[in-house]
Amino acid sequence: MKLDKHLKICIIGLGLMGGSYAQALSDEGYEVGAVARRRETLDYALEKGWIAHGVTEVTAEYMKKFDISVFALYPHIFVEWIEKYQNCLKPGAVITDVTGVKGCVVYKIQEMLRPDVEFIAAHPMAGREKSGIEYASKEIFRQANYIVTPTEKNTAQAVEICKSLGETLGFKTVTTLSPEEHDEMIGFLSQLTHCIAVSLMTCRDTDGFEKYTGDSFRDLTRIANINDVMWSELFLLNKKELLKQMELFENAFANLKKTVENNDIDEMRSLMRKSTEHRKCFEKEGK
Amino acid sequence: MKLDKHLKICIIGLGLMGGSYAQALSDEGYEVGAVARRRETLDYALEKGWIAHGVTEVTAEYMKKFDISVFALYPHIFVEWIEKYQNCLKPGAVITDVTGVKGCVVYKIQEMLRPDVEFIAAHPMAGREKSGIEYASKEIFRQANYIVTPTEKNTAQAVEICKSLGETLGFKTVTTLSPEEHDEMIGFLSQLTHCIAVSLMTCRDTDGFEKYTGDSFRDLTRIANINDVMWSELFLLNKKELLKQMELFENAFANLKKTVENNDIDEMRSLMRKSTEHRKCFEKEGK
Repeated sequence: MKLDKHLKICIIGLGLMGGSYAQALSDEGYEVGAVARRRETLDYALEKGWIAHGVTEVTAEYMKKFDISVFALYPHIFVEWIEKYQNCLKPGAVITDVTGVKGCVVYKIQEMLRPDVEFIAAHPMAGREKSGIEYASKEIFRQANYIVTPTEKNTAQAVEICKSLGETLGFKTVTTLSPEEHDEMIGFLSQLTHCIAVSLMTCRDTDGFEKYTGDSFRDLTRIANINDVMWSELFLLNKKELLKQMELFENAFANLKKTVENNDIDEMRSLMRKSTEHRKCFEKEGK
Repeated sequence: MKLDKHLKICIIGLGLMGGSYAQALSDEGYEVGAVARRRETLDYALEKGWIAHGVTEVTAEYMKKFDISVFALYPHIFVEWIEKYQNCLKPGAVITDVTGVKGCVVYKIQEMLRPDVEFIAAHPMAGREKSGIEYASKEIFRQANYIVTPTEKNTAQAVEICKSLGETLGFKTVTTLSPEEHDEMIGFLSQLTHCIAVSLMTCRDTDGFEKYTGDSFRDLTRIANINDVMWSELFLLNKKELLKQMELFENAFANLKKTVENNDIDEMRSLMRKSTEHRKCFEKEGK
Protein backbone atom coordinates (compact mmCIF):
# COMPACT_ATOMS: atom_id res chain seq x y z
CA MET A 1 0.00 0.00 0.00
CA LYS A 2 1.27 3.39 -0.99
CA LEU A 3 0.82 6.71 0.62
CA ASP A 4 -1.89 8.42 -1.34
CA LYS A 5 -3.34 11.84 -1.49
CA HIS A 6 -6.66 11.22 0.20
CA LEU A 7 -4.68 10.46 3.39
CA LYS A 8 -4.48 13.41 5.77
CA ILE A 9 -1.21 13.83 7.62
CA CYS A 10 -0.53 15.56 10.93
CA ILE A 11 2.93 16.74 11.95
CA ILE A 12 3.36 16.92 15.69
CA GLY A 13 6.20 19.26 16.52
CA LEU A 14 7.14 21.88 13.93
CA GLY A 15 10.88 22.25 14.40
CA LEU A 16 13.60 21.80 11.83
CA MET A 17 12.49 18.28 11.00
CA GLY A 18 8.72 18.68 11.38
CA GLY A 19 8.77 21.87 9.34
CA SER A 20 10.73 20.17 6.57
CA TYR A 21 8.23 17.26 6.53
CA ALA A 22 5.32 19.70 6.32
CA GLN A 23 6.88 21.57 3.43
CA ALA A 24 7.74 18.43 1.46
CA LEU A 25 4.29 16.88 1.93
CA SER A 26 2.31 20.05 1.19
CA ASP A 27 4.39 20.62 -1.92
CA GLU A 28 3.41 17.10 -3.00
CA GLY A 29 -0.26 17.97 -2.64
CA TYR A 30 -1.11 16.43 0.72
CA GLU A 31 -3.39 18.06 3.26
CA VAL A 32 -1.04 18.63 6.18
CA GLY A 33 -2.09 19.70 9.66
CA ALA A 34 0.12 20.41 12.64
CA VAL A 35 0.37 20.56 16.38
CA ALA A 36 2.89 23.08 17.68
CA ARG A 37 3.60 24.60 21.05
CA ARG A 38 3.65 28.17 19.86
CA ARG A 39 1.15 30.08 17.72
CA GLU A 40 4.04 31.88 15.94
CA THR A 41 5.32 28.56 14.63
CA LEU A 42 1.92 27.70 13.13
CA ASP A 43 1.66 31.18 11.63
CA TYR A 44 5.07 30.79 10.03
CA ALA A 45 4.11 27.43 8.50
CA LEU A 46 0.70 28.70 7.39
CA GLU A 47 2.24 31.72 5.72
CA LYS A 48 4.73 29.53 3.87
CA GLY A 49 1.89 27.25 2.76
CA TRP A 50 3.49 24.27 4.51
CA ILE A 51 0.34 23.41 6.49
CA ALA A 52 -3.36 23.79 5.78
CA HIS A 53 -4.24 24.29 9.46
CA GLY A 54 -2.85 23.72 12.91
CA VAL A 55 -3.48 23.84 16.66
CA THR A 56 -1.50 24.56 19.78
CA GLU A 57 -3.70 22.35 21.97
CA VAL A 58 -4.30 18.70 21.20
CA THR A 59 -8.00 17.77 20.91
CA ALA A 60 -9.73 14.56 19.84
CA GLU A 61 -11.76 16.60 17.38
CA TYR A 62 -8.62 17.82 15.61
CA MET A 63 -6.65 14.56 15.73
CA LYS A 64 -9.59 12.57 14.34
CA LYS A 65 -8.98 14.17 10.95
CA PHE A 66 -5.68 12.38 10.41
CA ASP A 67 -4.89 8.98 8.96
CA ILE A 68 -1.19 9.43 9.61
CA SER A 69 0.63 11.33 12.33
CA VAL A 70 4.35 12.05 12.31
CA PHE A 71 5.93 12.73 15.70
CA ALA A 72 8.81 15.14 15.27
CA LEU A 73 9.46 15.61 18.97
CA TYR A 74 12.29 14.94 21.39
CA PRO A 75 12.04 11.27 22.42
CA HIS A 76 10.82 11.80 25.99
CA ILE A 77 8.19 14.32 24.84
CA PHE A 78 7.01 11.81 22.23
CA VAL A 79 6.50 9.20 24.99
CA GLU A 80 4.69 11.73 27.20
CA TRP A 81 2.44 12.75 24.30
CA ILE A 82 1.37 9.16 23.68
CA GLU A 83 0.68 8.63 27.38
CA LYS A 84 -1.45 11.73 27.55
CA TYR A 85 -3.19 12.02 24.18
CA GLN A 86 -3.27 8.64 22.45
CA ASN A 87 -7.02 8.44 22.99
CA CYS A 88 -7.38 11.39 20.64
CA LEU A 89 -5.92 9.48 17.67
CA LYS A 90 -8.26 8.26 14.94
CA PRO A 91 -9.04 4.54 15.05
CA GLY A 92 -6.93 2.78 12.43
CA ALA A 93 -4.38 5.60 12.29
CA VAL A 94 -0.73 4.90 11.51
CA ILE A 95 1.81 6.89 13.46
CA THR A 96 5.53 7.29 12.80
CA ASP A 97 8.41 9.33 14.16
CA VAL A 98 11.78 10.90 13.37
CA THR A 99 13.67 9.79 16.49
CA GLY A 100 17.41 9.26 16.06
CA VAL A 101 17.55 6.19 18.32
CA LYS A 102 15.17 3.28 18.00
CA GLY A 103 15.45 0.35 20.43
CA CYS A 104 14.49 2.30 23.52
CA VAL A 105 11.60 4.12 21.84
CA VAL A 106 9.99 1.67 19.43
CA TYR A 107 9.17 -1.14 21.83
CA LYS A 108 8.05 1.24 24.56
CA ILE A 109 5.61 3.08 22.31
CA GLN A 110 4.32 -0.12 20.69
CA GLU A 111 3.80 -1.57 24.17
CA MET A 112 1.74 1.33 25.47
CA LEU A 113 -0.23 2.12 22.30
CA ARG A 114 -3.91 1.33 21.71
CA PRO A 115 -4.36 -1.84 19.67
CA ASP A 116 -6.24 0.00 16.90
CA VAL A 117 -3.37 2.39 16.15
CA GLU A 118 -0.07 1.22 14.66
CA PHE A 119 3.33 2.72 15.30
CA ILE A 120 5.91 2.17 12.59
CA ALA A 121 9.23 3.81 13.45
CA ALA A 122 11.52 5.62 11.02
CA HIS A 123 14.70 7.64 11.18
CA PRO A 124 15.16 10.34 8.56
CA MET A 125 18.97 10.72 8.59
CA ALA A 126 18.93 14.38 7.74
CA GLY A 127 19.52 17.50 9.74
CA ARG A 128 21.44 20.68 10.14
CA GLU A 129 23.54 22.25 12.88
CA LYS A 130 20.67 24.65 13.54
CA SER A 131 17.27 23.89 15.03
CA GLY A 132 13.84 25.51 14.66
CA ILE A 133 11.33 25.86 11.84
CA GLU A 134 13.14 28.90 10.44
CA TYR A 135 15.89 26.52 9.28
CA ALA A 136 13.47 23.92 7.91
CA SER A 137 13.75 22.99 4.25
CA LYS A 138 12.77 19.90 2.31
CA GLU A 139 16.16 20.20 0.58
CA ILE A 140 17.80 18.50 3.58
CA PHE A 141 16.24 15.20 2.47
CA ARG A 142 17.63 15.15 -1.04
CA GLN A 143 21.01 13.54 -0.38
CA ALA A 144 19.90 11.71 2.74
CA ASN A 145 18.89 8.22 3.88
CA TYR A 146 15.56 7.28 5.40
CA ILE A 147 15.50 4.14 7.51
CA VAL A 148 12.35 2.29 8.54
CA THR A 149 12.81 0.07 11.63
CA PRO A 150 9.90 -2.37 11.86
CA THR A 151 9.37 -4.89 14.64
CA GLU A 152 7.40 -8.14 14.74
CA LYS A 153 4.36 -6.15 15.77
CA ASN A 154 4.24 -4.18 12.54
CA THR A 155 2.03 -5.04 9.58
CA ALA A 156 3.44 -5.22 6.07
CA GLN A 157 0.95 -2.50 5.15
CA ALA A 158 2.26 0.02 7.70
CA VAL A 159 5.86 -0.72 6.66
CA GLU A 160 4.91 0.02 3.05
CA ILE A 161 3.16 3.27 3.96
CA CYS A 162 6.16 4.37 5.97
CA LYS A 163 8.61 3.57 3.16
CA SER A 164 6.33 5.34 0.75
CA LEU A 165 6.38 8.37 3.06
CA GLY A 166 10.20 8.41 2.87
CA GLU A 167 10.05 8.34 -0.92
CA THR A 168 7.42 11.07 -1.04
CA LEU A 169 9.57 13.25 1.21
CA GLY A 170 12.31 13.01 -1.41
CA PHE A 171 14.95 10.93 0.38
CA LYS A 172 17.73 9.56 -1.78
CA THR A 173 17.44 6.07 -0.33
CA VAL A 174 14.81 4.30 1.74
CA THR A 175 15.87 1.13 3.56
CA THR A 176 14.83 -1.02 6.52
CA LEU A 177 16.85 -2.21 9.51
CA SER A 178 15.90 -3.80 12.80
CA PRO A 179 15.89 -1.31 15.71
CA GLU A 180 19.04 -3.03 17.06
CA GLU A 181 20.93 -2.88 13.78
CA HIS A 182 19.90 0.74 13.45
CA ASP A 183 21.17 1.66 16.90
CA GLU A 184 24.53 0.00 16.38
CA MET A 185 24.98 1.75 13.04
CA ILE A 186 23.91 5.12 14.39
CA GLY A 187 26.05 4.65 17.53
CA PHE A 188 29.06 4.33 15.28
CA LEU A 189 28.39 6.57 12.27
CA SER A 190 26.66 9.43 14.02
CA GLN A 191 26.95 9.41 17.82
CA LEU A 192 30.61 8.38 18.01
CA THR A 193 31.54 11.00 15.42
CA HIS A 194 29.81 13.68 17.50
CA CYS A 195 31.67 12.47 20.62
CA ILE A 196 34.95 12.75 18.72
CA ALA A 197 34.16 16.24 17.46
CA VAL A 198 33.15 17.48 20.92
CA SER A 199 36.27 15.97 22.51
CA LEU A 200 38.57 17.44 19.88
CA MET A 201 36.96 20.86 20.23
CA THR A 202 37.22 20.89 24.03
CA CYS A 203 40.48 19.06 24.77
CA ARG A 204 42.70 22.14 24.93
CA ASP A 205 42.95 25.87 24.69
CA THR A 206 42.78 26.74 20.98
CA ASP A 207 43.05 30.52 21.14
CA GLY A 208 44.77 31.83 18.04
CA PHE A 209 44.73 28.48 16.24
CA GLU A 210 41.92 29.60 13.94
CA LYS A 211 44.53 31.50 11.89
CA TYR A 212 46.28 28.26 10.99
CA THR A 213 43.32 25.96 10.62
CA GLY A 214 43.10 24.02 7.41
CA ASP A 215 40.16 22.08 6.08
CA SER A 216 40.92 18.90 8.03
CA PHE A 217 40.37 20.45 11.44
CA ARG A 218 37.30 22.33 10.16
CA ASP A 219 35.87 19.13 8.72
CA LEU A 220 36.43 17.17 11.92
CA THR A 221 34.79 19.80 14.09
CA ARG A 222 31.86 20.96 11.94
CA ILE A 223 29.53 18.84 14.09
CA ALA A 224 31.18 20.13 17.29
CA ASN A 225 28.48 22.78 16.94
CA ILE A 226 25.89 20.61 18.64
CA ASN A 227 22.38 20.87 20.13
CA ASP A 228 23.19 19.85 23.70
CA VAL A 229 19.58 19.18 24.71
CA MET A 230 18.84 16.79 21.87
CA TRP A 231 22.18 15.00 21.66
CA SER A 232 22.58 14.37 25.38
CA GLU A 233 19.17 12.73 25.34
CA LEU A 234 20.01 10.64 22.27
CA PHE A 235 23.37 9.59 23.77
CA LEU A 236 21.77 8.31 26.97
CA LEU A 237 18.93 6.59 25.11
CA ASN A 238 21.55 4.63 23.17
CA LYS A 239 24.00 4.39 26.05
CA LYS A 240 24.97 0.73 25.83
CA GLU A 241 25.62 0.77 22.09
CA LEU A 242 27.35 4.15 22.16
CA LEU A 243 29.73 3.04 24.92
CA LYS A 244 30.58 -0.06 22.88
CA GLN A 245 31.44 2.09 19.84
CA MET A 246 33.41 4.56 21.99
CA GLU A 247 35.49 1.68 23.34
CA LEU A 248 36.25 0.36 19.87
CA PHE A 249 37.49 3.79 18.91
CA GLU A 250 39.47 4.26 22.13
CA ASN A 251 41.25 0.96 21.54
CA ALA A 252 42.13 1.82 17.96
CA PHE A 253 43.40 5.26 19.00
CA ALA A 254 45.49 3.78 21.84
CA ASN A 255 46.89 1.24 19.41
CA LEU A 256 47.96 3.94 16.96
CA LYS A 257 49.44 5.95 19.83
CA LYS A 258 51.51 2.93 20.83
CA THR A 259 53.01 2.71 17.35
CA VAL A 260 54.13 6.35 17.73
CA GLU A 261 55.53 5.73 21.22
CA ASN A 262 57.44 2.66 20.04
CA ASN A 263 58.61 4.16 16.73
CA ASP A 264 56.87 1.18 15.16
CA ILE A 265 56.77 2.62 11.67
CA ASP A 266 55.78 -0.67 10.00
CA GLU A 267 52.66 -1.10 12.09
CA MET A 268 51.84 2.62 11.79
CA ARG A 269 52.05 2.46 8.01
CA SER A 270 50.03 -0.72 7.96
CA LEU A 271 47.24 1.03 9.91
CA MET A 272 47.37 3.99 7.54
CA ARG A 273 47.13 1.72 4.50
CA LYS A 274 44.18 -0.12 6.07
CA SER A 275 42.58 3.27 6.73
CA THR A 276 43.06 4.40 3.13
CA GLU A 277 41.69 1.09 1.88
CA HIS A 278 38.57 1.21 4.12
CA ARG A 279 37.88 4.84 3.25
CA LYS A 280 37.47 3.92 -0.42
CA CYS A 281 34.09 2.30 0.30
CA PHE A 282 32.80 5.61 1.61
CA GLU A 283 33.80 7.81 -1.26
CA LYS A 284 31.21 9.72 -3.14
CA GLU A 285 31.68 12.39 -5.74
CA GLY A 286 33.51 15.44 -4.54
CA LYS A 287 34.02 14.07 -1.01
CA MET B 1 63.79 42.62 0.58
CA LYS B 2 61.24 41.21 -1.78
CA LEU B 3 61.41 38.30 -4.09
CA ASP B 4 62.07 39.77 -7.49
CA LYS B 5 62.09 38.49 -10.98
CA HIS B 6 65.80 38.50 -11.66
CA LEU B 7 66.12 35.80 -8.97
CA LYS B 8 66.28 32.29 -10.37
CA ILE B 9 64.49 29.61 -8.40
CA CYS B 10 65.12 25.88 -8.30
CA ILE B 11 62.52 23.39 -7.11
CA ILE B 12 64.08 20.22 -5.77
CA GLY B 13 61.49 17.45 -5.86
CA LEU B 14 58.61 17.79 -8.33
CA GLY B 15 55.75 16.10 -6.53
CA LEU B 16 52.37 17.56 -5.63
CA MET B 17 53.92 20.43 -3.72
CA GLY B 18 57.00 21.06 -5.85
CA GLY B 19 54.94 20.94 -9.01
CA SER B 20 52.46 23.44 -7.60
CA TYR B 21 55.31 25.79 -6.59
CA ALA B 22 56.79 25.52 -10.08
CA GLN B 23 53.48 26.32 -11.73
CA ALA B 24 52.74 29.30 -9.47
CA LEU B 25 56.21 30.81 -9.88
CA SER B 26 56.44 30.29 -13.64
CA ASP B 27 53.01 31.82 -14.08
CA GLU B 28 54.31 34.84 -12.14
CA GLY B 29 57.17 35.22 -14.62
CA TYR B 30 60.06 33.64 -12.72
CA GLU B 31 62.69 31.44 -14.31
CA VAL B 32 62.13 28.14 -12.57
CA GLY B 33 64.45 25.13 -12.78
CA ALA B 34 64.02 21.73 -11.20
CA VAL B 35 65.70 18.62 -9.94
CA ALA B 36 63.57 15.50 -10.20
CA ARG B 37 64.29 11.81 -9.92
CA ARG B 38 62.53 10.83 -13.11
CA ARG B 39 62.85 12.26 -16.60
CA GLU B 40 59.07 11.82 -17.12
CA THR B 41 58.37 14.24 -14.29
CA LEU B 42 60.57 16.89 -15.85
CA ASP B 43 58.96 16.32 -19.26
CA TYR B 44 55.50 16.75 -17.71
CA ALA B 45 56.52 20.04 -16.07
CA LEU B 46 58.30 21.27 -19.21
CA GLU B 47 55.28 20.50 -21.35
CA LYS B 48 53.00 22.38 -18.95
CA GLY B 49 55.39 25.34 -19.00
CA TRP B 50 55.93 25.07 -15.24
CA ILE B 51 59.74 24.90 -15.52
CA ALA B 52 62.23 26.38 -17.98
CA HIS B 53 64.67 23.48 -17.61
CA GLY B 54 65.52 20.66 -15.27
CA VAL B 55 67.90 17.83 -14.44
CA THR B 56 67.70 14.37 -12.93
CA GLU B 57 71.27 14.47 -11.60
CA VAL B 58 72.48 17.24 -9.29
CA THR B 59 75.56 19.07 -10.55
CA ALA B 60 77.38 22.16 -9.28
CA GLU B 61 77.11 23.60 -12.75
CA TYR B 62 73.31 23.41 -12.69
CA MET B 63 72.79 24.48 -9.09
CA LYS B 64 75.05 27.55 -9.48
CA LYS B 65 72.32 29.17 -11.59
CA PHE B 66 69.95 29.54 -8.64
CA ASP B 67 69.60 32.26 -6.01
CA ILE B 68 66.84 30.39 -4.25
CA SER B 69 66.22 26.67 -3.89
CA VAL B 70 63.01 25.19 -2.55
CA PHE B 71 63.29 21.66 -1.14
CA ALA B 72 60.02 19.85 -1.69
CA LEU B 73 61.28 16.47 -0.48
CA TYR B 74 60.46 14.08 2.32
CA PRO B 75 62.32 15.30 5.44
CA HIS B 76 64.99 12.57 5.57
CA ILE B 77 65.71 12.92 1.85
CA PHE B 78 66.08 16.68 2.33
CA VAL B 79 68.71 16.06 5.04
CA GLU B 80 70.52 13.52 2.86
CA TRP B 81 70.50 15.94 -0.08
CA ILE B 82 72.14 18.67 2.00
CA GLU B 83 74.78 16.23 3.29
CA LYS B 84 75.61 15.08 -0.19
CA TYR B 85 75.18 18.11 -2.44
CA GLN B 86 75.37 21.31 -0.40
CA ASN B 87 78.71 22.13 -2.01
CA CYS B 88 76.89 22.51 -5.31
CA LEU B 89 74.78 25.44 -4.05
CA LYS B 90 75.61 28.96 -5.21
CA PRO B 91 77.43 31.11 -2.62
CA GLY B 92 74.93 33.48 -1.04
CA ALA B 93 71.96 31.31 -2.00
CA VAL B 94 68.85 31.19 0.18
CA ILE B 95 67.21 27.80 0.60
CA THR B 96 63.78 27.00 1.97
CA ASP B 97 61.55 23.96 2.31
CA VAL B 98 57.96 22.71 2.55
CA THR B 99 58.41 20.27 5.44
CA GLY B 100 55.37 19.76 7.65
CA VAL B 101 57.37 19.56 10.90
CA LYS B 102 59.98 22.08 11.85
CA GLY B 103 61.91 21.66 15.12
CA CYS B 104 63.67 18.47 14.12
CA VAL B 105 64.55 19.69 10.64
CA VAL B 106 65.34 23.40 10.92
CA TYR B 107 68.10 23.24 13.54
CA LYS B 108 69.68 20.17 11.99
CA ILE B 109 69.90 21.71 8.53
CA GLN B 110 71.07 25.08 9.83
CA GLU B 111 73.74 23.28 11.87
CA MET B 112 75.15 21.33 8.96
CA LEU B 113 74.86 24.00 6.26
CA ARG B 114 77.74 25.99 4.77
CA PRO B 115 78.01 29.44 6.36
CA ASP B 116 77.55 31.21 3.01
CA VAL B 117 74.13 29.66 2.36
CA GLU B 118 71.07 30.47 4.49
CA PHE B 119 68.22 28.12 5.28
CA ILE B 120 64.91 29.78 6.14
CA ALA B 121 62.20 27.22 6.85
CA ALA B 122 58.57 27.46 5.78
CA HIS B 123 55.49 25.29 5.89
CA PRO B 124 52.93 25.77 3.11
CA MET B 125 49.79 24.40 4.79
CA ALA B 126 48.27 23.11 1.60
CA GLY B 127 47.88 19.70 0.13
CA ARG B 128 45.59 17.08 -1.26
CA GLU B 129 44.85 13.47 -0.49
CA LYS B 130 46.76 12.51 -3.65
CA SER B 131 50.47 12.78 -4.29
CA GLY B 132 52.52 13.25 -7.47
CA ILE B 133 52.96 16.05 -10.01
CA GLU B 134 49.86 14.97 -11.93
CA TYR B 135 47.78 16.34 -9.02
CA ALA B 136 49.81 19.55 -8.69
CA SER B 137 47.99 22.86 -9.03
CA LYS B 138 48.70 26.33 -7.74
CA GLU B 139 45.00 26.51 -6.80
CA ILE B 140 45.76 24.52 -3.62
CA PHE B 141 47.44 27.64 -2.19
CA ARG B 142 44.53 30.02 -2.61
CA GLN B 143 42.68 29.35 0.63
CA ALA B 144 45.72 28.19 2.56
CA ASN B 145 48.19 29.47 5.15
CA TYR B 146 51.93 29.79 4.68
CA ILE B 147 54.04 29.81 7.82
CA VAL B 148 57.64 30.94 8.01
CA THR B 149 59.56 29.54 11.02
CA PRO B 150 62.75 31.57 11.52
CA THR B 151 65.37 30.87 14.17
CA GLU B 152 68.01 33.13 15.75
CA LYS B 153 70.37 32.18 12.95
CA ASN B 154 68.18 33.73 10.26
CA THR B 155 68.69 37.18 8.79
CA ALA B 156 65.80 39.60 8.47
CA GLN B 157 66.47 39.65 4.76
CA ALA B 158 65.98 35.90 4.31
CA VAL B 159 62.78 36.02 6.39
CA GLU B 160 61.46 38.75 4.10
CA ILE B 161 62.33 36.83 0.96
CA CYS B 162 60.63 33.75 2.31
CA LYS B 163 57.47 35.64 3.26
CA SER B 164 57.49 37.29 -0.12
CA LEU B 165 57.73 33.82 -1.70
CA GLY B 166 54.56 32.80 0.18
CA GLU B 167 52.74 35.87 -1.12
CA THR B 168 53.95 35.30 -4.68
CA LEU B 169 52.73 31.71 -4.54
CA GLY B 170 49.26 33.08 -3.80
CA PHE B 171 48.70 31.97 -0.20
CA LYS B 172 45.81 33.57 1.60
CA THR B 173 47.84 34.38 4.69
CA VAL B 174 51.55 34.48 5.42
CA THR B 175 52.65 34.42 9.06
CA THR B 176 55.64 33.55 11.21
CA LEU B 177 55.93 31.21 14.20
CA SER B 178 58.87 29.75 16.07
CA PRO B 179 59.62 26.14 15.07
CA GLU B 180 58.35 25.03 18.50
CA GLU B 181 55.06 26.96 18.27
CA HIS B 182 54.62 25.60 14.77
CA ASP B 183 55.11 22.00 15.85
CA GLU B 184 52.65 22.28 18.73
CA MET B 185 50.03 23.85 16.47
CA ILE B 186 50.55 21.29 13.70
CA GLY B 187 50.60 18.43 16.22
CA PHE B 188 47.12 19.45 17.26
CA LEU B 189 45.43 20.84 14.14
CA SER B 190 46.85 18.46 11.58
CA GLN B 191 48.58 15.39 13.01
CA LEU B 192 46.06 14.68 15.77
CA THR B 193 43.18 15.03 13.32
CA HIS B 194 44.83 12.49 11.01
CA CYS B 195 45.31 10.10 13.96
CA ILE B 196 41.62 10.44 14.79
CA ALA B 197 40.53 9.82 11.21
CA VAL B 198 42.74 6.74 10.88
CA SER B 199 41.53 5.34 14.21
CA LEU B 200 37.88 5.94 13.35
CA MET B 201 38.31 4.33 9.96
CA THR B 202 40.05 1.23 11.31
CA CYS B 203 38.37 0.64 14.69
CA ARG B 204 35.75 -1.81 13.45
CA ASP B 205 34.28 -3.69 10.54
CA THR B 206 32.25 -1.17 8.53
CA ASP B 207 30.97 -3.39 5.74
CA GLY B 208 27.59 -2.17 4.56
CA PHE B 209 27.71 1.05 6.59
CA GLU B 210 28.44 3.12 3.48
CA LYS B 211 24.71 2.92 2.64
CA TYR B 212 23.84 4.85 5.79
CA THR B 213 26.73 7.27 5.94
CA GLY B 214 25.83 10.91 6.29
CA ASP B 215 28.11 13.89 5.90
CA SER B 216 29.46 13.80 9.44
CA PHE B 217 31.18 10.46 9.07
CA ARG B 218 32.42 11.40 5.61
CA ASP B 219 33.80 14.69 6.90
CA LEU B 220 35.59 13.02 9.79
CA THR B 221 37.22 10.40 7.60
CA ARG B 222 38.10 12.37 4.47
CA ILE B 223 41.72 12.52 5.66
CA ALA B 224 41.66 8.81 6.55
CA ASN B 225 42.82 8.48 2.95
CA ILE B 226 46.43 9.08 3.92
CA ASN B 227 49.92 8.84 2.38
CA ASP B 228 51.44 6.32 4.80
CA VAL B 229 55.06 6.97 3.81
CA MET B 230 54.90 10.72 4.36
CA TRP B 231 52.68 10.83 7.43
CA SER B 232 54.46 8.10 9.38
CA GLU B 233 57.68 10.03 8.89
CA LEU B 234 56.07 13.33 9.97
CA PHE B 235 54.47 11.68 13.03
CA LEU B 236 57.78 10.33 14.27
CA LEU B 237 59.62 13.58 13.55
CA ASN B 238 57.13 15.35 15.80
CA LYS B 239 56.72 12.46 18.21
CA LYS B 240 56.96 14.29 21.51
CA GLU B 241 54.49 17.03 20.57
CA LEU B 242 52.11 14.65 18.83
CA LEU B 243 51.97 12.33 21.85
CA LYS B 244 51.17 15.33 24.04
CA GLN B 245 48.26 16.32 21.79
CA MET B 246 47.03 12.72 21.57
CA GLU B 247 46.95 12.54 25.36
CA LEU B 248 44.94 15.76 25.64
CA PHE B 249 42.40 14.31 23.25
CA GLU B 250 42.33 10.91 24.97
CA ASN B 251 41.61 12.59 28.29
CA ALA B 252 38.79 14.70 26.87
CA PHE B 253 37.28 11.67 25.15
CA ALA B 254 37.52 9.57 28.34
CA ASN B 255 35.91 12.42 30.25
CA LEU B 256 32.97 12.60 27.85
CA LYS B 257 32.66 8.81 27.99
CA LYS B 258 32.45 8.99 31.77
CA THR B 259 29.51 11.38 31.55
CA VAL B 260 27.69 8.80 29.40
CA GLU B 261 28.55 5.95 31.76
CA ASN B 262 27.36 7.95 34.76
CA ASN B 263 24.26 9.40 33.09
CA ASP B 264 25.75 12.76 34.01
CA ILE B 265 23.60 14.79 31.67
CA ASP B 266 24.52 18.17 33.18
CA GLU B 267 28.23 17.69 32.61
CA MET B 268 27.59 16.19 29.17
CA ARG B 269 25.53 19.20 28.14
CA SER B 270 28.10 21.56 29.58
CA LEU B 271 30.81 19.93 27.42
CA MET B 272 28.57 20.18 24.37
CA ARG B 273 27.90 23.86 25.01
CA LYS B 274 31.63 24.51 25.45
CA SER B 275 32.22 22.66 22.19
CA THR B 276 29.63 24.76 20.35
CA GLU B 277 31.11 27.93 21.81
CA HIS B 278 34.71 27.05 20.88
CA ARG B 279 33.71 26.01 17.36
CA LYS B 280 32.43 29.52 16.65
CA CYS B 281 36.00 30.84 16.43
CA PHE B 282 36.70 28.42 13.59
CA GLU B 283 33.76 29.21 11.42
CA LYS B 284 34.28 30.47 7.95
CA GLU B 285 31.76 31.00 5.20
CA GLY B 286 29.98 27.87 4.08
CA LYS B 287 31.74 25.65 6.65
